[in-house]
Amino acid sequence: MNHGEFFPSIPKIQFEGAKSRNPLSFKHYNAEELVGGKSMKDHLRFACAYWHTMRNGLADPFGGPTAQRPWDDGSDSVANAQKRVWAMFEFMQKVGIDYYCFHDRDVAPELGDLAKSNAALDAVADELEKAQKQTGLKLLWGTACLFSHSRYNQGAGTSPYADVFAYGAAQVKKAIDITHRLGGEGYVFWGGREGYATLWNTDMKRELDHLARLLHLAVDYKKKIGFKGAFYIEPKPREPSTHQYDSDAAACLNFLREYNLLGELSLNLETNHATLAGHTMMHEMRVAREAGALGSIDANTGDELIGWDTDQFPTDIYLTTQIMIELLRAGGFTTGGLNFDAKTRRESFEPEDLFHAHIGGMDAFARGLKIAHAIIEDGRLDDFVKTRYSSYDSGIGAKIESGNVTLEELEAYSLANGEPTTKSGRQEMIENLINDFI
Amino acid sequence: MNHGEFFPSIPKIQFEGAKSRNPLSFKHYNAEELVGGKSMKDHLRFACAYWHTMRNGLADPFGGPTAQRPWDDGSDSVANAQKRVWAMFEFMQKVGIDYYCFHDRDVAPELGDLAKSNAALDAVADELEKAQKQTGLKLLWGTACLFSHSRYNQGAGTSPYADVFAYGAAQVKKAIDITHRLGGEGYVFWGGREGYATLWNTDMKRELDHLARLLHLAVDYKKKIGFKGAFYIEPKPREPSTHQYDSDAAACLNFLREYNLLGELSLNLETNHATLAGHTMMHEMRVAREAGALGSIDANTGDELIGWDTDQFPTDIYLTTQIMIELLRAGGFTTGGLNFDAKTRRESFEPEDLFHAHIGGMDAFARGLKIAHAIIEDGRLDDFVKTRYSSYDSGIGAKIESGNVTLEELEAYSLANGEPTTKSGRQEMIENLINDFI
Amino acid sequence: MNHGEFFPSIPKIQFEGAKSRNPLSFKHYNAEELVGGKSMKDHLRFACAYWHTMRNGLADPFGGPTAQRPWDDGSDSVANAQKRVWAMFEFMQKVGIDYYCFHDRDVAPELGDLAKSNAALDAVADELEKAQKQTGLKLLWGTACLFSHSRYNQGAGTSPYADVFAYGAAQVKKAIDITHRLGGEGYVFWGGREGYATLWNTDMKRELDHLARLLHLAVDYKKKIGFKGAFYIEPKPREPSTHQYDSDAAACLNFLREYNLLGELSLNLETNHATLAGHTMMHEMRVAREAGALGSIDANTGDELIGWDTDQFPTDIYLTTQIMIELLRAGGFTTGGLNFDAKTRRESFEPEDLFHAHIGGMDAFARGLKIAHAIIEDGRLDDFVKTRYSSYDSGIGAKIESGNVTLEELEAYSLANGEPTTKSGRQEMIENLINDFI
Amino acid sequence: MNHGEFFPSIPKIQFEGAKSRNPLSFKHYNAEELVGGKSMKDHLRFACAYWHTMRNGLADPFGGPTAQRPWDDGSDSVANAQKRVWAMFEFMQKVGIDYYCFHDRDVAPELGDLAKSNAALDAVADELEKAQKQTGLKLLWGTACLFSHSRYNQGAGTSPYADVFAYGAAQVKKAIDITHRLGGEGYVFWGGREGYATLWNTDMKRELDHLARLLHLAVDYKKKIGFKGAFYIEPKPREPSTHQYDSDAAACLNFLREYNLLGELSLNLETNHATLAGHTMMHEMRVAREAGALGSIDANTGDELIGWDTDQFPTDIYLTTQIMIELLRAGGFTTGGLNFDAKTRRESFEPEDLFHAHIGGMDAFARGLKIAHAIIEDGRLDDFVKTRYSSYDSGIGAKIESGNVTLEELEAYSLANGEPTTKSGRQEMIENLINDFI
Repeated sequence: MNHGEFFPSIPKIQFEGAKSRNPLSFKHYNAEELVGGKSMKDHLRFACAYWHTMRNGLADPFGGPTAQRPWDDGSDSVANAQKRVWAMFEFMQKVGIDYYCFHDRDVAPELGDLAKSNAALDAVADELEKAQKQTGLKLLWGTACLFSHSRYNQGAGTSPYADVFAYGAAQVKKAIDITHRLGGEGYVFWGGREGYATLWNTDMKRELDHLARLLHLAVDYKKKIGFKGAFYIEPKPREPSTHQYDSDAAACLNFLREYNLLGELSLNLETNHATLAGHTMMHEMRVAREAGALGSIDANTGDELIGWDTDQFPTDIYLTTQIMIELLRAGGFTTGGLNFDAKTRRESFEPEDLFHAHIGGMDAFARGLKIAHAIIEDGRLDDFVKTRYSSYDSGIGAKIESGNVTLEELEAYSLANGEPTTKSGRQEMIENLINDFI
Repeated sequence: MNHGEFFPSIPKIQFEGAKSRNPLSFKHYNAEELVGGKSMKDHLRFACAYWHTMRNGLADPFGGPTAQRPWDDGSDSVANAQKRVWAMFEFMQKVGIDYYCFHDRDVAPELGDLAKSNAALDAVADELEKAQKQTGLKLLWGTACLFSHSRYNQGAGTSPYADVFAYGAAQVKKAIDITHRLGGEGYVFWGGREGYATLWNTDMKRELDHLARLLHLAVDYKKKIGFKGAFYIEPKPREPSTHQYDSDAAACLNFLREYNLLGELSLNLETNHATLAGHTMMHEMRVAREAGALGSIDANTGDELIGWDTDQFPTDIYLTTQIMIELLRAGGFTTGGLNFDAKTRRESFEPEDLFHAHIGGMDAFARGLKIAHAIIEDGRLDDFVKTRYSSYDSGIGAKIESGNVTLEELEAYSLANGEPTTKSGRQEMIENLINDFI
Repeated sequence: MNHGEFFPSIPKIQFEGAKSRNPLSFKHYNAEELVGGKSMKDHLRFACAYWHTMRNGLADPFGGPTAQRPWDDGSDSVANAQKRVWAMFEFMQKVGIDYYCFHDRDVAPELGDLAKSNAALDAVADELEKAQKQTGLKLLWGTACLFSHSRYNQGAGTSPYADVFAYGAAQVKKAIDITHRLGGEGYVFWGGREGYATLWNTDMKRELDHLARLLHLAVDYKKKIGFKGAFYIEPKPREPSTHQYDSDAAACLNFLREYNLLGELSLNLETNHATLAGHTMMHEMRVAREAGALGSIDANTGDELIGWDTDQFPTDIYLTTQIMIELLRAGGFTTGGLNFDAKTRRESFEPEDLFHAHIGGMDAFARGLKIAHAIIEDGRLDDFVKTRYSSYDSGIGAKIESGNVTLEELEAYSLANGEPTTKSGRQEMIENLINDFI
Repeated sequence: MNHGEFFPSIPKIQFEGAKSRNPLSFKHYNAEELVGGKSMKDHLRFACAYWHTMRNGLADPFGGPTAQRPWDDGSDSVANAQKRVWAMFEFMQKVGIDYYCFHDRDVAPELGDLAKSNAALDAVADELEKAQKQTGLKLLWGTACLFSHSRYNQGAGTSPYADVFAYGAAQVKKAIDITHRLGGEGYVFWGGREGYATLWNTDMKRELDHLARLLHLAVDYKKKIGFKGAFYIEPKPREPSTHQYDSDAAACLNFLREYNLLGELSLNLETNHATLAGHTMMHEMRVAREAGALGSIDANTGDELIGWDTDQFPTDIYLTTQIMIELLRAGGFTTGGLNFDAKTRRESFEPEDLFHAHIGGMDAFARGLKIAHAIIEDGRLDDFVKTRYSSYDSGIGAKIESGNVTLEELEAYSLANGEPTTKSGRQEMIENLINDFI
């Protein structure tokens, strides 16, 4: 099937360097350029989000859709869904992104009957497989949408209704099957409705037991069918629920530890979710990294003054530097990647805006990568931190770290050694140092 | 030593019932009145915070102290500290609170030398012991202040400086000793400076390892000396640090699980800390309760529009109802209590304001207790919730709960059973029901 | 036309008193009961919001509609819109609310052509007129929806596109016409898209000039056609825009003063908008009242921890007390009323939930009215405040108020009179006093 | 008097260019370098805040001071205050800042008696005058501290106590006198306690009338003594009060308009106050600029996740670019300047940290200036905005702007012209464009 060109006025986006005045070019992202011996492309592993790029009409709670997507007939037909596959792949090829991510209900329609929805998903998967083969593009991760349909209005894994749990489990099974078939490198669990609207009507313990059950069933199934991709859980503090159980990295880790799932799932972290939780993205990455659970990243940003998930494209170089420094220190991605879970603003409704948006995000991450690499190469920051903690490398500090000490001994030590001294933490000097690399 | 009367114009506060127009009386708190077969006093176990009641001058970042405390000469002398003990105990007797809580540096001065500070603490503890014996009042919990002194500017257990860790450990040892000697029923760890100002200069992993080490040392010491009181850790999300490690209940539980401390410490939850973390107090209590880790409560409230810890006295009946319903469902306190970790506003600087403030808090909790008890007795709310989850009591739901099912079976079930149905969560009806009890 | 009954299982809601256990009854709202010589009904002037009650499917950004509205065929036909009128009026009659409020596009469909949309609106207005006559129910206020349609994606009065401004103006004219025809007592301007997504692409001065022009045109038109209803402007700080120009009461007043519109428009205040702006509703009402610009109220509430407009039904007695005390002190409503701009939660999707929700809000306001009245009658609070400022009633204070003094004289006075004294603000005592009435 | 050197280890800070690795050098700020024909120094007009640099011990609500200021004996003596003057001036000379700002109580002690405090202020002013002459450094603005002393616990101009008002007025008079004598180019009113803790005990109307009275008295006095400096009012939304009357730029403008003060006072805007109010600094500057009321700037920043005024040094290049672009478009400063109302972190307690902090802020603003200038020179952004609104330059748009149109005509126009079209707002493309200059 030949659908013609979907973005006829847009050429393949090229790297033209920092001095280019062409808005449809990369100023910094140069896919094959090596940074620390590895290509930008392999460092960054960009992915494109099917739901935003192809399916987001840019409606909001106060108004209908604005997005112009001329290839889409607006119907729930399988043919329309299959056609979209080719628009998506043309977009990815033109913008130079190798991976995509999807929910089952983004790529194929929900048809009000599980068997029919499954069949539609199979039919679209055929097309995706064809497109992958033809283009060499790949699936970063798949997932099941367990939050849009009204049946999930009170949760999926945590629904008070066992039949809804079962239905959600069936969707998960199918989405894992399709992800496996398409060679997906991971699978994400985002508990869109796994939380509560009011605690007054909620049996939280029972709900969390059920959610853990669903994850264990999925882990068992994954092993049974030989799916080797990674499983991720995605933190978010609230929205759409009043409280989401997977509220931040620490809450997820606590849950995974309690239910013996920590080795089986790692975290898919999203910037705007981190900030809504009252943390920085750097913090959430550090927490995940130090727990050995840094899996993948949903790259976006929020407005710093707005209390909901604005899913904007990330263009702040400070943010991308922080993300890349944590990522480099974690040794980079294995199965994960940088998925642009972001949409253009409702006012940016033309197809061309999709290109501006992705180009901006990719350039911002390319700069973040180069800056983070330079900071690490430079070594001054690391030296400062190492020296700051050096009192634990010997003497009483080493005894403390080894556990070879008691409170009584520490009291005796303190009585003998007088008032301890401290040095400036030098936050301002360090902030200046970071700025030197920007 | 006879210090005379400290609050000569204030009589012992009496219960006068809801119709009294005397602001210095209880309208609802009637200590010996039984609610569900247990006295209000035993349900509520009120405690008074030494730091706010005796030591808070009501300064803020923009202005000096305003509090009028005529008995206090403002000096760091042991005699002044010993005199304060009697003001505190007179206050507690007059307001009818049986327990108090303290930090080492509230009751006795920091004297710039550990041996001298310890000796001062011993001398004040003598006076506290005397006052306890004379009045029958008791110590709910003690703690060490590891955040005020400039040595702790970068943390205590998490300080980059081993000597500071040692000094903090010495303070903890002494504070446990004193708490033990005074028959304290618990001991709290609040990590006032255990966090970071900037992640750029911070080795988070090393800091958390050290913090866990300090707690393990304390647990070992407690066992060694035979202290039977409970150990609590207190969540707070930020302030004074940019990030506090013990940011909320889930973060604390994650930490306790990771470092094998969950059986040894439970949580001391504070309302304003819960709200700063983006949670309700009811949520934090539920999380702690379901993890078997609900220890004690710092009873206060924050302004709903202000982003820092205002430590106001709790007077909102909805809040006290929520706290009491969670507490009743947890079976009530064992070693814990309701500690008024609250201060009068800077504009409420007269000694009399201390009475208005505590009376208001005590009456609000008395009402919360009676309302919570009535809601549970009534049974309609519990019936609603039980029915809501009843699909898990048999059939496919029971199989899911027992773990006796697979994704494939759930898919087959869903294919066979069609679209599941759900019922209204009835949040508005439940909110009305709660209002019927208020 | 006889549509049969729309809520067959629900009887007319009756006042049954505080002891009733019937959830479908009023416990406190007794329409004809006198409070301070005026009936509850006349104090409260409840209104029902057409958009939430009839048109809100309860979709959110993460999922589709859940609301069950069996009378609605989901189409954009005029017949469907006319049928809804009778469902709305049956609901209002059963719940005992005399007023309604609407946007043009709630009651009648947007048909993609202004002439056709206008004709549809006329046809529905015929039905509304019929229903009003038949039932005696009335229109509190009307408005034009200038935010949903994609043409308004960058504003209406502040759109960068003059044709969009013209279209919005045309909608305003028609909506005023219909409001006038239906005897509406007011007309609201809520600038849903009057703000910006990013200041970088925005000429704020030009946009505000245009917005003021639109309001002046409307004022001129109103006078020309003899519409006697009040004009209101409604503050909201952000959402759907990143910044809304009418961000809070003070911003609106500043705008009205700058453009000479203050006498022509007063404020329609909404609780959740107030809290999103970082204020309390009591504050916004006070600001409006003291500027002589307190017009009408959108009665709802938000979740105190959530950063967007949740439009929940107001059930907090403290909130309704605060609203009613400000309203009583303003002398009550003239043309305004308490419009329930609130929706049931997405989980509360059954028609019955509409009744629980409105009953809860009405009872909460009835209690707030009685409490506010009692506080004012009691007089202790007012006496406290009067005494607090009494130093301005004579002496140097009176000179200050009269303006009959200079800085030099005040310096001389202060040099002569020494350190001034102040008294406690007694916030805690006052909070206890309020609780005595709850 | 020769005090010797206060910062002996620190040389005068030099511009060394972007490649320098010396943390105690400027990488971007080159005072005499021309940008658009005007020196950086004249564009930026940096000022140093006496209260933070000399008087902030870095205490916070949870701990005592940490700052090492070896020249300060900690006493309230006039001699100590006079000595500090020379430390301040040495610091300013070494860091290359020409202006300073002060509160009366920063430079001289509050001595518990107005006459004595005034005399102390005179004595320190002698020293300041001497230091100004000797160094050529200048006073940007002065102010009176009407918020620290306990007498102002319930406000100064808005105090319920007339004697407090009088005392505050006396302080204002004296502070204007001293500012005038020292050749200050402006005078600031920051209403640190002009707000309320609780609205329940507050007569807001009477308080605002009093505040306006104080400002009118000051305006009268200023004219009488011939002080030519500008008067500024400074917005802040809350803290230390629960609500501050001057909450944001719009609230200040509304107040100034209501009380006929708009021509007499302009705004002194602070970044962290803007963000606490839920706005961006760019927004507040635009609001002030378009009202002709952009006076001066308190240059700092807050942590984006923290809900209080952290007063950090500004280092974010995006922020400084936004500030400078608004400033350049306003035509630059006349009497105002960029005052670093910022403190080092409590952990950054060494004197050297003062240098790192100011250097970082100055370099960040130098970059912001150059970037803003380049964006304006480039012209693409301005062209985009101009084109965006071009439909108002002729045709129906021009008629709308001229006011030469009615609602009826606009309806007729819209009926005749069909559905209007809009173009993408291109937010993402613009964000990329900005990044091209960073």
